[in-house]
Amino acid sequence: MASAICNHGDQHLQGNPSFRSQKRFITIQEIDNSRRGRERIVILGSGWAGYTLARDLDQRKFQVVVVSPRSYFVFTPLLASTSVGTLEFRTALEPVRSRRLRAEFFQGWGDGVDFENKRLTIEEAVEDPLQGRGLAGDREDASKEHVEVKARNVQKGKLFDMDYDKLVVAVGCYSQTFNTKGVRENAFFLKDVGDARRIRQRLLSCFETAALPTTSMTMKKQLLNFAVIGGGPTGIEWSAELHDLIQEDMRRLYPTLTPLAKITVYDVAPSILSMFDKKLSNFALDHFKRGGINVKTRHHVEELRTGVPKAILEADDSIQDSETCYTLKIREEGEIGVGMVVWSTGLMVNPFLAKALKCKVERHEKSGGIITDTHLRAKLPTGSTSTSSSVVKDVYALGDCAILEGTAYPATAQVASQKALWLAKHLNRGDLEKEQTPGFTYKDMGVMAYIGNWNAIMQSQGGDISGRVAWFIWRGAYLAKSVSWRNRLLIPTYWFVNWLFGRDVSRF
Amino acid sequence: MASAICNHGDQHLQGNPSFRSQKRFITIQEIDNSRRGRERIVILGSGWAGYTLARDLDQRKFQVVVVSPRSYFVFTPLLASTSVGTLEFRTALEPVRSRRLRAEFFQGWGDGVDFENKRLTIEEAVEDPLQGRGLAGDREDASKEHVEVKARNVQKGKLFDMDYDKLVVAVGCYSQTFNTKGVRENAFFLKDVGDARRIRQRLLSCFETAALPTTSMTMKKQLLNFAVIGGGPTGIEWSAELHDLIQEDMRRLYPTLTPLAKITVYDVAPSILSMFDKKLSNFALDHFKRGGINVKTRHHVEELRTGVPKAILEADDSIQDSETCYTLKIREEGEIGVGMVVWSTGLMVNPFLAKALKCKVERHEKSGGIITDTHLRAKLPTGSTSTSSSVVKDVYALGDCAILEGTAYPATAQVASQKALWLAKHLNRGDLEKEQTPGFTYKDMGVMAYIGNWNAIMQSQGGDISGRVAWFIWRGAYLAKSVSWRNRLLIPTYWFVNWLFGRDVSRF
Repeated sequence: MASAICNHGDQHLQGNPSFRSQKRFITIQEIDNSRRGRERIVILGSGWAGYTLARDLDQRKFQVVVVSPRSYFVFTPLLASTSVGTLEFRTALEPVRSRRLRAEFFQGWGDGVDFENKRLTIEEAVEDPLQGRGLAGDREDASKEHVEVKARNVQKGKLFDMDYDKLVVAVGCYSQTFNTKGVRENAFFLKDVGDARRIRQRLLSCFETAALPTTSMTMKKQLLNFAVIGGGPTGIEWSAELHDLIQEDMRRLYPTLTPLAKITVYDVAPSILSMFDKKLSNFALDHFKRGGINVKTRHHVEELRTGVPKAILEADDSIQDSETCYTLKIREEGEIGVGMVVWSTGLMVNPFLAKALKCKVERHEKSGGIITDTHLRAKLPTGSTSTSSSVVKDVYALGDCAILEGTAYPATAQVASQKALWLAKHLNRGDLEKEQTPGFTYKDMGVMAYIGNWNAIMQSQGGDISGRVAWFIWRGAYLAKSVSWRNRLLIPTYWFVNWLFGRDVSRF
Repeated sequence: MASAICNHGDQHLQGNPSFRSQKRFITIQEIDNSRRGRERIVILGSGWAGYTLARDLDQRKFQVVVVSPRSYFVFTPLLASTSVGTLEFRTALEPVRSRRLRAEFFQGWGDGVDFENKRLTIEEAVEDPLQGRGLAGDREDASKEHVEVKARNVQKGKLFDMDYDKLVVAVGCYSQTFNTKGVRENAFFLKDVGDARRIRQRLLSCFETAALPTTSMTMKKQLLNFAVIGGGPTGIEWSAELHDLIQEDMRRLYPTLTPLAKITVYDVAPSILSMFDKKLSNFALDHFKRGGINVKTRHHVEELRTGVPKAILEADDSIQDSETCYTLKIREEGEIGVGMVVWSTGLMVNPFLAKALKCKVERHEKSGGIITDTHLRAKLPTGSTSTSSSVVKDVYALGDCAILEGTAYPATAQVASQKALWLAKHLNRGDLEKEQTPGFTYKDMGVMAYIGNWNAIMQSQGGDISGRVAWFIWRGAYLAKSVSWRNRLLIPTYWFVNWLFGRDVSRF
């Protein structure tokens, strides 16, 4: 039985003296009352996998309960656009509570799972000061680093239990920093909408600070030096959006400053956009070169800290070391003064898996993700004493936190949403547990990236496209794929308004 | 001479040892270069007065420099709508830096003025953590109260000097709290867009926390008890917008919670909306009653603190005192548990006037505002040794911080913008200093207020209107008065989209 190897899983909860007393007053009576004989499917997460599944499950058959620390789903391909003001933040969001998605919702983190009694422990997270921010390390550690959290002396949220009939783990991943010194504290990530807001705020502050007469020329150059770490689609699209912002708007608003602005993409790999054909990634590279964006491959970040590089401080005694800029240390270049660093070098496993699922499920040796069979059922650990089954009963895993046994599907929105659609279909039909049901297979629909100045690259079964036509398809595809009609109306409105009048640069 | 009584005005600056060394490296060479022989008009503030003036001054004649701690102008009548999500925040903003407003801009606070040498000292404020927030007391005191500021250990911004030919003081007012205990720290104001965002966030958090199974019925009722202090147009419009949000959206999203929600408007005066005719304010009162909004006049707030009322704590030992709700102490009612308090009881003088202008200008005995003559010129203090003039040379004051001698014009957007238009016209014409130029007179265009459920009240020369027709005019007027075409497109789009699909309740 699974319990034989996993009965120590909840020790960290029972060891907490206030835990039992907290749960004494807790009732989930309301959602028990509205269950009306339906099976309850609890979905952990509201990203591409969790949100898509919640939307597609048949609510007449199932009581769908979404548990997520975020009150919304993020349409991630548009995040880079929102971070420079091409789109308003909320055009990339769909609230989990909405007239269209009739699922139950609790804002909280999964804290522990009792597979035997089919019970989930949830830590409520309504006032979590880090909500809206992607994380790059254990949540409790992250809290210690953030001044806004420290100042409020935030404690662990209250806990409560909920029974499930089926549990779907779709908790996603955190940003990978490879424990590079200072990155978690000082870099800007682009995983969630709160990150996008921080980037927009910082970006505009850099220009406004550079415009002050109290800012010396040396400091201006550092403030307007923007570094992007990671040459994948996110890093590249963000660089492209920043380039557009500078060329289309900042050039008019800060005419004397824009010649000082500089964008550099660093990557450890020998090339960027490795998921694209050589021809397309070279097209992007040429396009970047013409646009003045530097790409430095085979470069290694060693540290990121606040303040001015030492060499600059020593050379010019009029500069006081201040926290208005950052110092990026590159192994191949030494210390560089930068206005901000946007970090996008991939994903690390969500600590929830190690904490709450521990040895209860089979996990990938290298990445730590949950291994599933082709029916997306979480596998029991190898060497488990169970003889009757190789999977955990009624527990499914999908999205970036799950790996389908024997495959190397990428951790993308496409894979996550295809898995969610597949799982919803078979749960609705009731044929998921039948072994004759063919398993999930991924259909690669192609990959595309915006590269700036109304150009994109696109690679699919139908062939490769680059340039203006690809950009047109890029916009059309994301508009069509947008979840709600609300955003299908707002997104083109903002494209039009910002094209006509320029992006808004108000900061608040 | 003015200097005779005011030469101690800059002592607080010269007393600062780092002040001179800071200014040593400062150059405003760039804007000196672009002056091209024009007179320089420096405008302190970017509100109704400052922004309107900057827009209307003839840039061929004047180099216009706006100095403001905010990077935008707020179209204040729409703030209440943005605070509940009827409109997106940025639809109420116009950036000071924009393609249309070609003024120079420095983001900073006025710190001191040397009238004799016509020189302004500016404290830069680009990274001010309180930007976007209306203030309700001295800025440095306010900083001590805000955790986000405390945590960052923010220091005074760098200082720099700028010469002016003409100086326009339009720094506005702060929120008045009458030093009521705990109000400055715990109340929610509605003066600026950052305030609106805080309100929206808190409002939605109250519902989401109430929806948690860890929240007892007693706590739910407190969290959903919303108090508004002040029965003026701001307080009334906000109550109306909250009422709409609850009836139109929350009722669908949190069906079991909305019956618990309660809105109460408190005022010390015997009636609300005192600037309207009795008939119209009674119409509003009746409308509120039918909508279930309580209005309690002749009530006095004594304190606002975090935590649960003592009586509730004593009666139910299952409730732990937590910071998730507030306790409002009303003289006539005792302690009441509330989810949030929106405070709107009027204005207090901006501390800048006392700090930087001190005894250099004549100030109103009671309110502390700058007294101007009918040409909006700041008056010299009575008893000034000057014999040649009764006004400060080339210094003008308008907006909420100024009072036209012998008048009692209200501190409203209407007065501020009319004064700005008048001043711009006469500065452009060059006839301001001519004594035969007729002085400014205010033309009351009427007053209107939204009262919820698609109803408004309107009072003007043309007669009184109330109900649906007034609401239609209310919307039309604000759409027509919107500053930019950008917002004239976005505002009706949001009205339409939110009417069709409901307001967005994502929090980040």
